[in-house]
Amino acid sequence: MDDSYDLIIIGGGPAGYTAGIYASRALLNTLIITSYIQPPQVVLTDIVENYPGFPEGINGFDFIEKVKQQAEKFGCKMTVSEVVKIEKQDKHFEVHLSSKAILKTKAIIIASGRRNKKLSVEKEEEFIGKGISYCAVCDAPLYRYKTVAVIGGGDTAFSEAIYLTKFVNKLYLIHRREQFRATKLLQKRLLSDELKDKVEVVIPYIVEKFVGEDRLNGVVIRNLKTNNVEIIHCDGVFVCIGYQPNTEFLNGIVKLDDNGYIITDINLQTSQPGIFACGDCRQNTLKQVVYACADGAKAALSAVEFIENNKF
Amino acid sequence: MDDSYDLIIIGGGPAGYTAGIYASRALLNTLIITSYIQPPQVVLTDIVENYPGFPEGINGFDFIEKVKQQAEKFGCKMTVSEVVKIEKQDKHFEVHLSSKAILKTKAIIIASGRRNKKLSVEKEEEFIGKGISYCAVCDAPLYRYKTVAVIGGGDTAFSEAIYLTKFVNKLYLIHRREQFRATKLLQKRLLSDELKDKVEVVIPYIVEKFVGEDRLNGVVIRNLKTNNVEIIHCDGVFVCIGYQPNTEFLNGIVKLDDNGYIITDINLQTSQPGIFACGDCRQNTLKQVVYACADGAKAALSAVEFIENNKF
Repeated sequence: MDDSYDLIIIGGGPAGYTAGIYASRALLNTLIITSYIQPPQVVLTDIVENYPGFPEGINGFDFIEKVKQQAEKFGCKMTVSEVVKIEKQDKHFEVHLSSKAILKTKAIIIASGRRNKKLSVEKEEEFIGKGISYCAVCDAPLYRYKTVAVIGGGDTAFSEAIYLTKFVNKLYLIHRREQFRATKLLQKRLLSDELKDKVEVVIPYIVEKFVGEDRLNGVVIRNLKTNNVEIIHCDGVFVCIGYQPNTEFLNGIVKLDDNGYIITDINLQTSQPGIFACGDCRQNTLKQVVYACADGAKAALSAVEFIENNKF
Repeated sequence: MDDSYDLIIIGGGPAGYTAGIYASRALLNTLIITSYIQPPQVVLTDIVENYPGFPEGINGFDFIEKVKQQAEKFGCKMTVSEVVKIEKQDKHFEVHLSSKAILKTKAIIIASGRRNKKLSVEKEEEFIGKGISYCAVCDAPLYRYKTVAVIGGGDTAFSEAIYLTKFVNKLYLIHRREQFRATKLLQKRLLSDELKDKVEVVIPYIVEKFVGEDRLNGVVIRNLKTNNVEIIHCDGVFVCIGYQPNTEFLNGIVKLDDNGYIITDINLQTSQPGIFACGDCRQNTLKQVVYACADGAKAALSAVEFIENNKF
């Protein structure tokens, strides 16, 4: 591996690889660093139905393989490692890897994505993609006329639940508190008369574990007041207790918002000139594969311009 | 065809069909109206190399077929017609078609794209299809072993010129500036040693007029430094100088910028609540297929929210 690049892209998801395709086609000497700890969210998705160009849908892992090949074809280099630290030097950046290697680069694109907050209960990992989902827009059509449970009480949980009501026959909303943090408008919609036969609120309950054989068929919950343990039979569970952007390693080199997302300007440049961000780790994006890709393209073109404007 | 919809999408390019995929998956009763006068720009492209997911590239027409199928699969309806006028009514919009049909809809997404700009010089209109073209993929085979000129200095001009070199014996690239805006990779390819006997760069020149009897046989150009007027004899000219958004039919119902592109807010809503815009007809977008798709997804989700917030 060389130790000097025009551009280093941190993250091997749709945003990172698309940035790689665009940067390599623009003849930047580009390295993509993918993490082995945080796989891109899309590989957790069995079938991505709404990425344009695949009428039959495409498996998340297959999609990543395709965009990776495409970036390689244009000459993009790749390595698997964890980024420990980024340091700004006078005329370049240093990217420190867990392997102790230190790479030099003229510009950086952060495309490190985000991860779902997990409940961390039994069988959660096992049933991801087999009845456990973290995204209604992605997976709701798989549960048409079925029974699902949504876990959570914030905006995400309510939005996802409202979306799901168009598809499912029955929806349980399970939340550990008796109040919801979700905005009033969302609460009003989900708990409307129109939906009252379909939606059942289950509070204050926490999830003890998931059950099922090859795939999920129920969720075991415990009432926080009575301590009674119950089981809810369902075909799917949407865990909507929030997300965590993978931005901890940045450690102050770029500005983050209160939730840890990277703040950018309209050209996707962060608070640190020469460092750009795209995809799910960035503030105010649509958390969709096609949107992450477009964001990656834009960040790459901004990086190209940055490098051309700053003679190195 | 029904005459009442939740959402009407005007335009059958990457943005329009992706909006259709997202809107139909969200169970909106959606109609896409495609124009037979303005085909989507992507079908004029032989191989799209940088749309993520197709490592070998994909033919523009094949891509459109795929996204069309994908939208159809989710229940999106389609018709081919020209939109003559949009009228705002009290609680809905009316979309007037060239067939005299009047359709009702709760929301509209404009994804009408843009078209190639013309030079507006003498004999340009007269020689369209008789030596003047705006699309190498369409017309290159007509110029096998012949001499052509390409007008322009951006990505389009270079892509078209590279494509043409496979067919023609001689190619002049005529540009009014001494620098090119085209990406470096494209410049490197067209101006390579391999092509240097075939390709001749003619800068800084503007086109004064086209000449010929029944069909074009030359182009009169003027050197911007010396003011010398010269003639280049050629069999064909490809005009690649930019684009014009297809927004004339909107006739004041939404605000446009000085170049005719639709102005939107961050949710892609136009100045008229309930009318959204996406893709190449919109101001400040990256003119890339993947970006148009992402834009379409975002416009659709905004339309879904608009319809939910405004009980009809």
